[in-house]
Amino acid sequence: MDYPARQKQLWRELERAGLDYLLITHLPNIRYLCGFTGSAGVLLMAAGSGVFFSDGRYQEQVRREVVGVRATISRKPPLIAAGEWLTDRGRKSKLKVIGVEGEYLSAAARVGLSRHLGRGFRVRLAQPLVEGMRLVKDADEIERLRAASRTGAALFKVALKAIRPGTQETEVAAEMEYAARRAGGEGMSFPTIIASGPRSAMPHARASAAAIPARGFVVCDFGVILAGYCSDMTRTVHVGSPTTASRQMYAAVQQAQQAAIEMVRPGISVGEVDQVARKILKQNKLNRYFTHSTGHGVGLEIHEGPRLAAGQRQMLQPGMVVTVEPGVYRSGSGGVRIEDMVVVTARGCEVLAPVDKELITI
Amino acid sequence: MDYPARQKQLWRELERAGLDYLLITHLPNIRYLCGFTGSAGVLLMAAGSGVFFSDGRYQEQVRREVVGVRATISRKPPLIAAGEWLTDRGRKSKLKVIGVEGEYLSAAARVGLSRHLGRGFRVRLAQPLVEGMRLVKDADEIERLRAASRTGAALFKVALKAIRPGTQETEVAAEMEYAARRAGGEGMSFPTIIASGPRSAMPHARASAAAIPARGFVVCDFGVILAGYCSDMTRTVHVGSPTTASRQMYAAVQQAQQAAIEMVRPGISVGEVDQVARKILKQNKLNRYFTHSTGHGVGLEIHEGPRLAAGQRQMLQPGMVVTVEPGVYRSGSGGVRIEDMVVVTARGCEVLAPVDKELITI
Repeated sequence: MDYPARQKQLWRELERAGLDYLLITHLPNIRYLCGFTGSAGVLLMAAGSGVFFSDGRYQEQVRREVVGVRATISRKPPLIAAGEWLTDRGRKSKLKVIGVEGEYLSAAARVGLSRHLGRGFRVRLAQPLVEGMRLVKDADEIERLRAASRTGAALFKVALKAIRPGTQETEVAAEMEYAARRAGGEGMSFPTIIASGPRSAMPHARASAAAIPARGFVVCDFGVILAGYCSDMTRTVHVGSPTTASRQMYAAVQQAQQAAIEMVRPGISVGEVDQVARKILKQNKLNRYFTHSTGHGVGLEIHEGPRLAAGQRQMLQPGMVVTVEPGVYRSGSGGVRIEDMVVVTARGCEVLAPVDKELITI
Repeated sequence: MDYPARQKQLWRELERAGLDYLLITHLPNIRYLCGFTGSAGVLLMAAGSGVFFSDGRYQEQVRREVVGVRATISRKPPLIAAGEWLTDRGRKSKLKVIGVEGEYLSAAARVGLSRHLGRGFRVRLAQPLVEGMRLVKDADEIERLRAASRTGAALFKVALKAIRPGTQETEVAAEMEYAARRAGGEGMSFPTIIASGPRSAMPHARASAAAIPARGFVVCDFGVILAGYCSDMTRTVHVGSPTTASRQMYAAVQQAQQAAIEMVRPGISVGEVDQVARKILKQNKLNRYFTHSTGHGVGLEIHEGPRLAAGQRQMLQPGMVVTVEPGVYRSGSGGVRIEDMVVVTARGCEVLAPVDKELITI
């Protein structure tokens, strides 16, 4: 990862935003900028330099990982250490403007920081500058996302072997997560969703102790973290013979998902991708059962920008990596979701780990 | 879980704190108060009533889980929905004071909320009222923590089978996590730490692709989530024959941990427990290598109050569940940590899942 290039880009962003410093508290942003993968740290960036603050538990790790910025280890919590570093330097100079990450600094921490810094500093909620940079993935990141997606896609085969009537949903998840670890995964991108029968109508149902029923849909939504980057994929299979209505529901979601993927290209807005999926579900009179957005960016985090939702105007750009995942959920009967991760290319998009989408019955 | 009793207790806390409402955004607090286990929701509590806000994805889950408060599903994000609910009711009445969770509401959300509510409302950073209630576990919670601890402790046997020179740390983690899932675990309490050889000197090293060396310590720190409650346990084993220095280091940590456990009882402060562990490491000239606190509370979250750290004055009370986990980390050579979870009883404490602590060599 080219951390110095990212730091340089952020310096330009700081100047443009009129900030003397940006205080970065969101760990994925810290990792993106300087490589630190631990769970306690604060990065203070100024135009032309940066200082990273962590505590004694991470001394060794900071030495191994942090690139391009000064690293300091303190006995105090990193945010306090960063505050003291600022006041040590700020006393005699002109007013300094400190940008903070409004979404990732707590209301209490902001009050504490402003109080600690006192006069001589102004704390301002900054725009999501680092998130803005992270929207478009560089070549190293796309390679990692492709690797994660392939490892993730292989887990679907594991699921297919494990899904049987009477098997607990958690057992299916266990087999998949074991395979993910054996393949080098650092963990799962999110709690594995294995939602069978009526539970498939809950879009976010984690694998439960419920036994897979003799007949019905099984939604499998899963992802693996590989070298820091997340994969995300959903396939829905049917146990037993599907009814005509179930077949139609599946076909509609499949068609909506395919149409949305075909819409993804530079110059199209994320809202237009969402719209085409909704349009096809509407033609099938299923749009009111599509209760979430069509997709989201993926990278160091499982949910990043852009959000592929109604009315969103963000334009797709080459290097963006997003999910495309329409779904239909009918309370009492069941649900279907189909999801792929795609990278936006110069003229269209590439599905990162293509896996067949025809309805599989078990 | 007796959610109505918890809600009643919170009502009393609200009156005492002079709050008309408490806006609860921290998901474990929401789960604690009304049973919702999903990942998007806001709970607004007033003295005598409560309203829970979630979105369409959770309609089914809200219906199944939420107890004792009104539940509403909105197309808008839950925080916006809660804000609108308040303004709909606040216009013509006297000034209302809304407490927010300062640690768990972002600085940006706080600004947005204050702006939305406008005059007629005052937004105030509340004390951690729900966290205060959660410090002391009720009988249902202790039962769940005991079950989680036992399931967690069984994973150490799995680790012992898997730890061999040349095996990757992640392979050991894979076997443990697979066993956890098979035992009904919803997931791990935190990323499993398998830190071998020189990596054992990093207190928070996640399992990596590194192969376990022929000689050295292996720190295994792991926990499972069972029915929402976390376990947390650490054992350190030695591969190959330990040097005299390594044996002494292990013995010192073992002695410090035992002394700290024996100190745990009502009427003793958490700082005193920390102090006794440090004292014994000091007698062994190892205290400067003990770079973290002695323990923390555990419950719905892996890290809760109280914090067993130097100078902390919180008094131990029956029903508190805390870890006791001193450690020594010598950069370049290795580290040792031993950790148990204990519940404070009327006269002392009970180790939740006792497992032998003599040094095991592999």
